[in-house]
Amino acid sequence: MKGRCMKQIPLLATAAVVVLSVGGGVSFSARGADDEATPVFGIKLPPGYRDWRLISVAHEEGSLNDLRAILGNDVAIGASREGKLPYPDGTIIARLAWSYDPLEESEKAFGSPQTFVAGPPRNGVQFMIKDSIKYASTGGWGFAQFNDGKPADEAVHKTCFSCHQLARSRDFVFNRYAP
Amino acid sequence: MKGRCMKQIPLLATAAVVVLSVGGGVSFSARGADDEATPVFGIKLPPGYRDWRLISVAHEEGSLNDLRAILGNDVAIGASREGKLPYPDGTIIARLAWSYDPLEESEKAFGSPQTFVAGPPRNGVQFMIKDSIKYASTGGWGFAQFNDGKPADEAVHKTCFSCHQLARSRDFVFNRYAP
Repeated sequence: MKGRCMKQIPLLATAAVVVLSVGGGVSFSARGADDEATPVFGIKLPPGYRDWRLISVAHEEGSLNDLRAILGNDVAIGASREGKLPYPDGTIIARLAWSYDPLEESEKAFGSPQTFVAGPPRNGVQFMIKDSIKYASTGGWGFAQFNDGKPADEAVHKTCFSCHQLARSRDFVFNRYAP
Repeated sequence: MKGRCMKQIPLLATAAVVVLSVGGGVSFSARGADDEATPVFGIKLPPGYRDWRLISVAHEEGSLNDLRAILGNDVAIGASREGKLPYPDGTIIARLAWSYDPLEESEKAFGSPQTFVAGPPRNGVQFMIKDSIKYASTGGWGFAQFNDGKPADEAVHKTCFSCHQLARSRDFVFNRYAP
């Protein structure tokens, strides 16, 4: 497990990230909703998440080495734009990530990388789901990671909340809405 | 003008990028549609673009130094997902960008930056609009840049097409859909 909590801080479900190789070109969204629920939090892959609106974008260096987008369902977008905490029940935040690839045209023109773009999916897709009753013991949040559409294992899911405590003052959410 | 064509290759309307300081925290989308059209291509700020779905994400190094998201209207999303070229008339692609900021929690935990997130808007917002008749002389594309909601000047707009010729084999569009 390469991406342990105190070595890497991705934007979402921090410690849950292990650098897993995901089949190049396989679209998560193309797989549709999966019937298999994650361990620990019992979350199924939310259908249609690739169509959700954008909250923000980020880049992780180190072994994570990805470009990522944070998308949100309607509740998440509304809450993120208002900036009011805590997030309401029903919020779902999705973190997608892709490999961090130099843009071919840019590198050819300048002789060195200038522009980095999203390549194939990388580091799985992660979700935070707000349900203040169901997930009361983890700040009201359920955490989920899917690798190529399949739930990550129990060990991965047991590490999420501890790292998100770094963002306790922002209701355990690292990202902020990018206007 | 810092971001000249042959010095920088952003994902969209390449040469059009001049590094303009945009008022921190001012939301483009919050300004709504503007009545002022751009020079050269006569394009008005498309209303509601911040709600469009995500095509891809990118990072520009150098003086551009930003994190960016490529959003598309429904026509653009459909075409991007299919990957068929050329893009149909009615396609609108938006390039938003924000400053490239280290995430505070990450830097504190590790002593050096690991996670970079979107800060205030930076480098304006750009659009490509496909109309094969109206914009026949520029590959069927109209190009637009708005800085803090206002059209960039004529000099900026005269540089867009020449740099996008680097992506001629992909119908002048640098980005590709991130699944």
